[in-house]
Amino acid sequence: MNNTWEGILSPPLPGRKQKPRTTGITMLIDKGLTIRETGDLLSLNDPYLDFIKLTFGTAALYPKAVLIEKIKLVKSFGVFIYPGGTFFELALSQGKRTAYFQSLIEVGFDWVEISDGTLDISGAERTLAIQEANKLGLHVITEVGKKDAANQPNEDLLAELARRDLQEGAEWVIMEGRESGKGIGIYDNQGGLVLDKFNRFSNRIEPEKIIWEAPLKGQQAVLINHFGPNVNLGNIPPSEIMALEALRLGYRSDTWKKSNK
Amino acid sequence: MNNTWEGILSPPLPGRKQKPRTTGITMLIDKGLTIRETGDLLSLNDPYLDFIKLTFGTAALYPKAVLIEKIKLVKSFGVFIYPGGTFFELALSQGKRTAYFQSLIEVGFDWVEISDGTLDISGAERTLAIQEANKLGLHVITEVGKKDAANQPNEDLLAELARRDLQEGAEWVIMEGRESGKGIGIYDNQGGLVLDKFNRFSNRIEPEKIIWEAPLKGQQAVLINHFGPNVNLGNIPPSEIMALEALRLGYRSDTWKKSNK
Amino acid sequence: MNNTWEGILSPPLPGRKQKPRTTGITMLIDKGLTIRETGDLLSLNDPYLDFIKLTFGTAALYPKAVLIEKIKLVKSFGVFIYPGGTFFELALSQGKRTAYFQSLIEVGFDWVEISDGTLDISGAERTLAIQEANKLGLHVITEVGKKDAANQPNEDLLAELARRDLQEGAEWVIMEGRESGKGIGIYDNQGGLVLDKFNRFSNRIEPEKIIWEAPLKGQQAVLINHFGPNVNLGNIPPSEIMALEALRLGYRSDTWKKSNK
Repeated sequence: MNNTWEGILSPPLPGRKQKPRTTGITMLIDKGLTIRETGDLLSLNDPYLDFIKLTFGTAALYPKAVLIEKIKLVKSFGVFIYPGGTFFELALSQGKRTAYFQSLIEVGFDWVEISDGTLDISGAERTLAIQEANKLGLHVITEVGKKDAANQPNEDLLAELARRDLQEGAEWVIMEGRESGKGIGIYDNQGGLVLDKFNRFSNRIEPEKIIWEAPLKGQQAVLINHFGPNVNLGNIPPSEIMALEALRLGYRSDTWKKSNK
Repeated sequence: MNNTWEGILSPPLPGRKQKPRTTGITMLIDKGLTIRETGDLLSLNDPYLDFIKLTFGTAALYPKAVLIEKIKLVKSFGVFIYPGGTFFELALSQGKRTAYFQSLIEVGFDWVEISDGTLDISGAERTLAIQEANKLGLHVITEVGKKDAANQPNEDLLAELARRDLQEGAEWVIMEGRESGKGIGIYDNQGGLVLDKFNRFSNRIEPEKIIWEAPLKGQQAVLINHFGPNVNLGNIPPSEIMALEALRLGYRSDTWKKSNK
Repeated sequence: MNNTWEGILSPPLPGRKQKPRTTGITMLIDKGLTIRETGDLLSLNDPYLDFIKLTFGTAALYPKAVLIEKIKLVKSFGVFIYPGGTFFELALSQGKRTAYFQSLIEVGFDWVEISDGTLDISGAERTLAIQEANKLGLHVITEVGKKDAANQPNEDLLAELARRDLQEGAEWVIMEGRESGKGIGIYDNQGGLVLDKFNRFSNRIEPEKIIWEAPLKGQQAVLINHFGPNVNLGNIPPSEIMALEALRLGYRSDTWKKSNK
């Protein structure tokens, strides 16, 4: 596709996977892109983007016809789209799990996120949700971690939960980082990686199955320097999709320099 | 309009007002959206947006024909538009108060902001400006609070000023928070609410008449958790309009969880 | 062009230069704007924008035809465009200096940035690069300063390097500030100006030839208050172009108030 610098320049970080791929996933956090913005973004960034998340409950704020059109548009680019986990938790809290899954299918979603970031959900409920979504034909991504850091289980338990989710039928597990990337999960209040937490979690799971929410550039760089160009990263703002791809390829100081030392 | 989840999900925070409304106002800070961006934003966010502010003196930076077209476009969606208060203060400092009001009317503005964020303005001058704007046919929003925190009067005086403005003919009063939301008015240097200042001010005014500048998500959440879904909020960046509406409805952890405890 | 307030309001900071200009340059940091976004931005901000930088290695991420179209579009507005210096350093490190310059010309670039933000480059190599680029017909901007603050030479050496670059054929020299503007060059970890560093550098160079990377509003305001409306500023995000022009004209509290005291 892009041969401007073919034979002249090669990326400092080799091995970046092309689409379709099952690692090296980039997931966008979408807080309300219009149809036009979505199509425009995809027309250029399609090769660098795998998932669009209509974050928290924003899916409810589109007129139904616009939502259907947006989902169709995204899928036409070979990109997956799903509503944020909070929306699932809300449905569950209102006793509408099955109706929720069916409503997603009706408007065109193929994927659902199952999380317990706000609500406390038992292991049995979680399993039931994953299995029912699968049975209805939905692909499942789960998320581990609480939106209120004070309620966060330790990383051994989170890793155990992630492992179980994958056994029950989830295809990826997201590690919570919120939109801010600060004071949450494996990140400190400035957005820095808390190495001890990170290691406890990452040593206990298959990294290819984890999507790290990493909204901040420093987080993306640290994770790419640790796992390589094909680490799965999520909650990437729309303006950062191409910048992240540059990081993955070593086309930016933060990942180029370190890889060459 | 939106019945995708009708009968399946209801918002955790009930009572959100639909347009036209006089409380629950969302005011956008616009630093130079093009005609296309403005139309695009409104086509989706029209139900969630009440005011667009062409912030500080940016109104002066549009070619006249573009400005006229933009104002017309915004009004066609039932959204109000006005230039930032700094622009008024500048006109006043150059002895052009009346000419300024007339020029606004000429290009299509129906609203004006009267403030003293940068300039010191006497009570008599302030009253004169509000009354003259009204007489010329302009709706008036005033603002209380200084852009330089070191010059800020105490909250009793700000509340008194707000009350007087409303008596003189202002329809809403903005509480200054600037674009950053940090180290200004009721916010500390990290953007947190200073409870003592907030209480001193909010206990002395009708909350339905105050528009709180609250550019940061944490500020929006605190004010929604305090006043409910129909608090008036301003200086919302373009990318946050739908996210704020989700907060107002409890479709996000920050306002859902607290309201259910 | 814009006579809405002609004869009514004049900018508090007088003397702002119109295009074409050689001081008062505004350089945009572009992390992947689409053709449509680029055209849209330029249609309104053309008078306020002089350079677009396709930052770090993002130029490599456009399909060749799209890149050619984007460069042509930008130039049609009388705005200059060039790829980030990291891309040059990458080519140099792979022994492809000449081929790199030729490939830029092939897709339509007229300008190149020569930097050593990541790579260590000898004085002789730097001179050779500037002179060869010029000989091939490219205008040259250089950059001084390291992307890793720990490796930063002192400001005397940076000023000396800048002076030499200008003698060798560079038309402007950028002072490194990165995208963040924090903990880099003349900025502390909060983005504040380190006066001692700033003075050491700025006292030793012609200010009209320096483009200060200043992504944060506070930095822009400090530099405008110091040098006046026609200071050259770079790494300005797309959403801030008009806001910066308002600062240059004194149409915002941060530069109005100080200039009137």
